[in-house]
Amino acid sequence: MTTQSINIAILGASGYTGAELIRLLALHPNSNIKALSAERRAGEDVSSVFPHLSGVELSRLQRVNEIDFDEIDVVFCCLPHGTTHEIVSSLPERIKVIDLSPDFRLSNVANYEAWYGPHKAPRLQETAIYGLPEIRRGMIQSARLVGNPGCYPTSVILPLAPILKHDQIEEDRIVIDSKSGVSGAGRAEKEANLFCEVAEGIHAYGVGSHRHMPEIEQELSLAAGKNLKVSFTPHLMPMSRGILSSIYVCLKNGQTVSDLKENLVTQYRNEPFIRVLESDALPATRHVRVSNYCLINVFKDRLSGRAIILSVIDNLVKGASGQAIQNMNLMCGLDEDTGIAQQPLFP
Amino acid sequence: MTTQSINIAILGASGYTGAELIRLLALHPNSNIKALSAERRAGEDVSSVFPHLSGVELSRLQRVNEIDFDEIDVVFCCLPHGTTHEIVSSLPERIKVIDLSPDFRLSNVANYEAWYGPHKAPRLQETAIYGLPEIRRGMIQSARLVGNPGCYPTSVILPLAPILKHDQIEEDRIVIDSKSGVSGAGRAEKEANLFCEVAEGIHAYGVGSHRHMPEIEQELSLAAGKNLKVSFTPHLMPMSRGILSSIYVCLKNGQTVSDLKENLVTQYRNEPFIRVLESDALPATRHVRVSNYCLINVFKDRLSGRAIILSVIDNLVKGASGQAIQNMNLMCGLDEDTGIAQQPLFP
Amino acid sequence: MTTQSINIAILGASGYTGAELIRLLALHPNSNIKALSAERRAGEDVSSVFPHLSGVELSRLQRVNEIDFDEIDVVFCCLPHGTTHEIVSSLPERIKVIDLSPDFRLSNVANYEAWYGPHKAPRLQETAIYGLPEIRRGMIQSARLVGNPGCYPTSVILPLAPILKHDQIEEDRIVIDSKSGVSGAGRAEKEANLFCEVAEGIHAYGVGSHRHMPEIEQELSLAAGKNLKVSFTPHLMPMSRGILSSIYVCLKNGQTVSDLKENLVTQYRNEPFIRVLESDALPATRHVRVSNYCLINVFKDRLSGRAIILSVIDNLVKGASGQAIQNMNLMCGLDEDTGIAQQPLFP
Amino acid sequence: MTTQSINIAILGASGYTGAELIRLLALHPNSNIKALSAERRAGEDVSSVFPHLSGVELSRLQRVNEIDFDEIDVVFCCLPHGTTHEIVSSLPERIKVIDLSPDFRLSNVANYEAWYGPHKAPRLQETAIYGLPEIRRGMIQSARLVGNPGCYPTSVILPLAPILKHDQIEEDRIVIDSKSGVSGAGRAEKEANLFCEVAEGIHAYGVGSHRHMPEIEQELSLAAGKNLKVSFTPHLMPMSRGILSSIYVCLKNGQTVSDLKENLVTQYRNEPFIRVLESDALPATRHVRVSNYCLINVFKDRLSGRAIILSVIDNLVKGASGQAIQNMNLMCGLDEDTGIAQQPLFP
Repeated sequence: MTTQSINIAILGASGYTGAELIRLLALHPNSNIKALSAERRAGEDVSSVFPHLSGVELSRLQRVNEIDFDEIDVVFCCLPHGTTHEIVSSLPERIKVIDLSPDFRLSNVANYEAWYGPHKAPRLQETAIYGLPEIRRGMIQSARLVGNPGCYPTSVILPLAPILKHDQIEEDRIVIDSKSGVSGAGRAEKEANLFCEVAEGIHAYGVGSHRHMPEIEQELSLAAGKNLKVSFTPHLMPMSRGILSSIYVCLKNGQTVSDLKENLVTQYRNEPFIRVLESDALPATRHVRVSNYCLINVFKDRLSGRAIILSVIDNLVKGASGQAIQNMNLMCGLDEDTGIAQQPLFP
Repeated sequence: MTTQSINIAILGASGYTGAELIRLLALHPNSNIKALSAERRAGEDVSSVFPHLSGVELSRLQRVNEIDFDEIDVVFCCLPHGTTHEIVSSLPERIKVIDLSPDFRLSNVANYEAWYGPHKAPRLQETAIYGLPEIRRGMIQSARLVGNPGCYPTSVILPLAPILKHDQIEEDRIVIDSKSGVSGAGRAEKEANLFCEVAEGIHAYGVGSHRHMPEIEQELSLAAGKNLKVSFTPHLMPMSRGILSSIYVCLKNGQTVSDLKENLVTQYRNEPFIRVLESDALPATRHVRVSNYCLINVFKDRLSGRAIILSVIDNLVKGASGQAIQNMNLMCGLDEDTGIAQQPLFP
Repeated sequence: MTTQSINIAILGASGYTGAELIRLLALHPNSNIKALSAERRAGEDVSSVFPHLSGVELSRLQRVNEIDFDEIDVVFCCLPHGTTHEIVSSLPERIKVIDLSPDFRLSNVANYEAWYGPHKAPRLQETAIYGLPEIRRGMIQSARLVGNPGCYPTSVILPLAPILKHDQIEEDRIVIDSKSGVSGAGRAEKEANLFCEVAEGIHAYGVGSHRHMPEIEQELSLAAGKNLKVSFTPHLMPMSRGILSSIYVCLKNGQTVSDLKENLVTQYRNEPFIRVLESDALPATRHVRVSNYCLINVFKDRLSGRAIILSVIDNLVKGASGQAIQNMNLMCGLDEDTGIAQQPLFP
Repeated sequence: MTTQSINIAILGASGYTGAELIRLLALHPNSNIKALSAERRAGEDVSSVFPHLSGVELSRLQRVNEIDFDEIDVVFCCLPHGTTHEIVSSLPERIKVIDLSPDFRLSNVANYEAWYGPHKAPRLQETAIYGLPEIRRGMIQSARLVGNPGCYPTSVILPLAPILKHDQIEEDRIVIDSKSGVSGAGRAEKEANLFCEVAEGIHAYGVGSHRHMPEIEQELSLAAGKNLKVSFTPHLMPMSRGILSSIYVCLKNGQTVSDLKENLVTQYRNEPFIRVLESDALPATRHVRVSNYCLINVFKDRLSGRAIILSVIDNLVKGASGQAIQNMNLMCGLDEDTGIAQQPLFP
């Protein structure tokens, strides 16, 4: 067996999702990282922004416009939203692109602009696929441009899409309470993310206005076959990695908790990265830490006719870089779990 | 001005609520701690179980039955549930008792027994007052026995009771998602509370079955004037102190978010420890850390006809020992904030 | 008894030492905070930079040049080093000043300039007193300008000064290994202080070059009666507050561990904030958290002729704002522990 | 190429080193875990003690005496000290053993007994090899029984052995100040390891008496060619993984910091897991987290004639399970980094 070698460029490599891509790709048998960009750190070694990666042989950080894309097969974009449209537009059509920003996640350009501002590549948007493999595997396999899902949406859509598709819950009464580690906020030098501001505390943020809402609603609406809105409240808590989403739903059409669970079990039976837990086992973020897994379970609520769905992921793996590699594997015809099959880390 | 001196015994003093009582009472001008019990550590100095308190002059730890209650005016019980009934029954009628266990919180004895097992002092239960000063100040002032509220219930009842009393939300659709620090689980030597099991993670527990539910439902039903049930899901997260409750409610009778907020503002205008935040300020547990404050705010939900209420407390202060002292102050005719008016700690 | 009222201004109030001063002074019976400065946040309420302090009635943040110093008795300076010289020079002679920056700690101006750059108030420097009350109480009582000690130096000088004064250890072989919480690095928006960079890790910094060294050496040299240098290595670890200094020394003149300890016990017997622990009790930062205490103990080393001295403080209290208030109390003729006698916080 | 399959038993698999072995061996191409023991949890699934490992197909937990050792090639012992001697003695001579307890680390049986109590397999001890591959690779390759080094000793011996071998520092003046995460204390249900006791704090422990001292001294004495003792003080800090050792040494024979560093660079140039950092780069535990690396650097001390050596490892990988697999690879003739070449994890 010869091993296919994929030449990779990572744009915006100096943040946490960039670090995680490099770490994971170092374990990937087909990966060959050829170029890394970081505008403000161009010219430096990767080890100057990520000393923990000094064991990986990598070329220096470059500006995007210094990269020779002729030798690149796949681009991972980890740039801030609003900057990706133009860069992706400029890439040769031959190159496959996985964009980790929100820039290509919303198929409705007007919707994008309402939440993020001007969309500078509406044509390209038409070709972009929302990269949640468990929901849209076939389309990803043939895609050239994938919008890699947000961390919160991943934790929410995976449990809810099959349930909405089977019309098991009321679409307009979904309440999502999500808790995230701090790496989801990125590596920006903001007071709010300083150790002393985050440690020993928790708070909600973006209440009623978080930018992951349209993405959640887009995918759940598709699953439900009708437009829906959700109540979504994210919380920031003192850990580096992990998301737990607690989802409160109202059963419909005489459905029971067992029915929901059976649906999920059936749906995800053969998925390598989704695990619907048995009986009343409680998903914990420490059970998926540093892995590409998503754990889900469904519980009877004390209020009759209601259920509680809990799901956990590592926001930097299944919620970002791990899923991006899963998408690359699909786009390149590799085994889907290549390079990302590691077990969770505990303690 | 002469200062009234109150002779105090703390039973079960070797846990975290005991430590917090001792720390706070050391700042209380009327407090005179005369006796401390801890069955397994009897004979030892307090400083052997709490080295940080070696600066406070205290008598040695005793067994409960070694304490001379003739010299005691007020007893704080921090014993495990199920053990308090008999001990409180045996105390002279003259002694005022604040019980921090759940043993005297549920007025309905059958309800208690369904959740906790046999109630061994049903007569005494009839005289016990649920000690949430902002809701039941008058009755506490004349009480002899106060059941000090649980930490989760305090964070939930304070925002919801006035709203239910004014019939502003649907009683049977209240969803409460609470997040707590680890001290709420006590000082027991359990694997689940080890540093490595808790750090860098979050999980829900007691889903659909947490023992604080009947307590929440008792008080909210009283406020609403009708029996209600709630959906309540607690989560354990890596911090020592603090509770954030995110409460999802459905508006009723044409009520708006502003109506709810106005009600709370009016209700709590003169309360020393409740602060309803202005505009869209987000309550964070770090804003109440180590204080007796409860911060509350109300937000418009993305789903129409719904609101999100956020409340934060320090589970060991307003959720336990601080509130217990607030109750003592009321029972003894002192200014309500005596000894517990300290500002929050940050960072 | 009438209570003396001291009108206070805090300059540079928007950092962590500022917050801690406000919190502590709110408990101080003689304190009347009249003015607070923060150049970049001038015009805002304190509650906008410190939501946890919204319960304290305070005037708005001002620029330094907007403050009416005619009504001020005491100024606490929490400004960055290099900015204090000129501001203190401009204050009326009548005002007592406690400077929490390093600007007035080093009596030798040349020494200051070697470590920090130009000293802009050398005359004023001659009048400044190094504000470690346990070492220099008398001079502080009559001082007008006090240089409040650094956090690391406080943890090091308190245990070592009496030992050096009694010639009990070799002066040129002192090795100090200190570990600090993150609040010591201040509230600046630096990547190095982000939660994800600090959590779950430890590293040394400023090895062989940390700016607290000259301060340590100045005071230890004075105690020893001869110039000495020390080996000092600080470490940054994932907690908000606390310093532990582990000090490795070589005994001299036939001295024993017991001799050192007896010296410290004698020296600090009547000090309200220093506690030399008994037998082999181990000082832990959690035993002094949020208090003005310093705990010290001395241990036999496995290497013969050597001892290990451990000391702990809360860097924001005894290492900064608490000690500043202790100095104010002395300078104003109040009881030394006024407003700062609280017991440590645990958990 | 056919892949050699190694049948493995892990004894005492329910602790943190057991979890880490399972996680790492799941990535090892030659590993076939056939049996896992845990006396108190025998009969349960691994997923009941380690829910995060439910994705690995494993047989149920057994008692040691239920294991069929006929099918086992390699045994990893993660049992408490004092229990390993007899169990290893009972294993067929054919089976290779890597013992992660201290039971076979000290070649001098009397020394073992002074620190740990009776040694029950002194004959076997004569055949045991101290398993630090970088120091004793050849002997490990032909060993049947390896005593896997302790976590602290690994972090200390790796930097010091080459330096002592080359007679570059004074042997009787080595001061080691080590800081460790909590997983080093194991999974025992002890009050001292509860989240609330460890978070937001640091303390020294085992001062002058920690059991890793004889192990450090044995190996350093061998390197130095003479008996030596060290000053070693471990500290417990609030992180799950990681050890930083700060080592203070006195130069000898005109040696300089550059000489020490050059020696280390030469010694470790071809080692896959040791990295001597360039210029003044500071080793941080987050740079080795979840990897088998050891980072080392040497610094000029402010005191003349002295140097400061800093080293970091992950205590559960290079300090325990990773190194154990490194030893297995050597004992079985595999590439030394098989299955343990992953890059560090950050954040």
